[in-house]
Amino acid sequence: MKRKPNIAVVGATGVVGSTFLKVLEERDFPYENLYLMASAKSAGKTLTVKGKDYVVEELTEHSFDKPIDIALFSAGGGTSAKFAPIAAEHGCIVVDNSSQWRMYDDVPLVVPEVNPEDIDWNHGIIANPNCSTIQAMVPLKPLQDKYGIKRVVYSTYQAVAGSGIKGIHDLENGLEGNDAPLEAYAHPIANNILPHIDVFLENGYTKEEMKMINETHKILHDDDIKVTATTARVPVFYGHSESINIELKKPFELEDIIELFKNTPGLVVQDDVQNNVYPLALDAAGTDPVYVGRIRRDFSVENGINLWCVADNIRKGAATNAVQIAEKLLEKLPD
Amino acid sequence: MKRKPNIAVVGATGVVGSTFLKVLEERDFPYENLYLMASAKSAGKTLTVKGKDYVVEELTEHSFDKPIDIALFSAGGGTSAKFAPIAAEHGCIVVDNSSQWRMYDDVPLVVPEVNPEDIDWNHGIIANPNCSTIQAMVPLKPLQDKYGIKRVVYSTYQAVAGSGIKGIHDLENGLEGNDAPLEAYAHPIANNILPHIDVFLENGYTKEEMKMINETHKILHDDDIKVTATTARVPVFYGHSESINIELKKPFELEDIIELFKNTPGLVVQDDVQNNVYPLALDAAGTDPVYVGRIRRDFSVENGINLWCVADNIRKGAATNAVQIAEKLLEKLPD
Repeated sequence: MKRKPNIAVVGATGVVGSTFLKVLEERDFPYENLYLMASAKSAGKTLTVKGKDYVVEELTEHSFDKPIDIALFSAGGGTSAKFAPIAAEHGCIVVDNSSQWRMYDDVPLVVPEVNPEDIDWNHGIIANPNCSTIQAMVPLKPLQDKYGIKRVVYSTYQAVAGSGIKGIHDLENGLEGNDAPLEAYAHPIANNILPHIDVFLENGYTKEEMKMINETHKILHDDDIKVTATTARVPVFYGHSESINIELKKPFELEDIIELFKNTPGLVVQDDVQNNVYPLALDAAGTDPVYVGRIRRDFSVENGINLWCVADNIRKGAATNAVQIAEKLLEKLPD
Repeated sequence: MKRKPNIAVVGATGVVGSTFLKVLEERDFPYENLYLMASAKSAGKTLTVKGKDYVVEELTEHSFDKPIDIALFSAGGGTSAKFAPIAAEHGCIVVDNSSQWRMYDDVPLVVPEVNPEDIDWNHGIIANPNCSTIQAMVPLKPLQDKYGIKRVVYSTYQAVAGSGIKGIHDLENGLEGNDAPLEAYAHPIANNILPHIDVFLENGYTKEEMKMINETHKILHDDDIKVTATTARVPVFYGHSESINIELKKPFELEDIIELFKNTPGLVVQDDVQNNVYPLALDAAGTDPVYVGRIRRDFSVENGINLWCVADNIRKGAATNAVQIAEKLLEKLPD
């Protein structure tokens, strides 16, 4: 592509939205015009990107009347439900961070290191997967390709930034011991673990747990992988940790898997336990890779393996992944 | 038993030791004489139990020359290795909270709700299981009895009190943001998750993870149960949470399991997700039961079930369990 695209960031003032801007800046993402959009409540604010000030405009049905090539959405499912189709009708490609479109058959769900080919069949909307799914896909994909995955048991340790600024407030207020009412959670999160992310469904699972199950199938293109999940919120600001137990279809040598992971783009192996090296949320925060460690055979099942997987849920789990999708789109935009 | 026993608490000034005293007091545990013992460093301190002051004496090879019926030890593996046999030789029954004796064939490993019968064949030392194992045994035992357990995958969320006062200091200092050097952990625990409890072994597992595997076999008297574990430290002061994934041998109805749990002594079912009721570390802290919730079928495997299990690791996971063992011993002491 020779010309630079026009870019919109929808939900620009939120936790993910502001990280979109940071990541666009860090990666020197090329654009001709940048439009920042948000709800009426946040419109009028001024944000600085690459040294230039932008006034946040209110998102309306006419926001996409102007020519916009790519829009990065992170403004909640309701906003995406209404405005992503409007943007797409105007020829804009939406990369949407909400869960609204993820399971639609005509919407690709993409982790660029895992299934970049799915970008090609988009119809104007590409979904960014759930944060806890994205990071798990990066080590699972090479395992699926080389050995085949039979079953996965996820247990997650998810940071409060995944609930946006309200989650951050709840942890800050809790740690300060003040009496501020809870904004994001049903129970205090400071000094506590909440086995409750997103709403509960009739089958006893949370929506977050079902996202991990369904999105794993869709991204790896294999509905036969057996998956279960327990997702929990922990008193950490940024960075999701995951205990992942996997049954592979074929036998493996542990060294081969470590070598495979070392050669997987976007994945960093941190596994030197004798020197206390393993992935940590605090170290992952503010960085883009997915980290994997505690790689060890699970002796309780044939071809079993345990992993500890960590990533910054706002970066690789949201903003960075979306910008990486946008980078792939750049290569394909018409002149 | 008509006469009241003489009791010793070894390691009386530690986090578990001081909880021994609190639990003895709360349960109005009967004793004639109470002896508090600790290392030379802590000897001389005065502690109050049931309104009476006791001076902590130094633990020596002669501490058990006086008649003591039951000694509750929580002073570390090295101290137990040296002094528990001395106490036992003097006719005292030791209930030991360290990992030192747990896997010895002639030492019963006991959760009183689960395998009280094992107390009978003690030879002077009874081991208190690892905190994270104890709480898991309480829901697993009725499942094992009714359906048979094929496989268990544990992922834990363990509180810093499990590392004693040093763990508590590390979290306090971290939350205060001061520069105090770490006392218990290899990395900061505030705002972080550490997939590292106890030392690493050659097979890539931590000793804590192998404790959960081996102790599950010993307490449930079934080495054929397949078990794997990933144990992690979380920034919570008191109360371990556990994500437990179980494959049963026989088919089950979910309602039957919930009913079974409701009728299990020491177990409290907290499972009303539509009203945000599930076990929480913050609620469990300071209480004695084991709590279970998020009880739901795991559709990824035949006869699978997921549980969320929480208990106060210092109480049911240590002090309360030991005092419950001592209560069983009371019934059997000679006149």
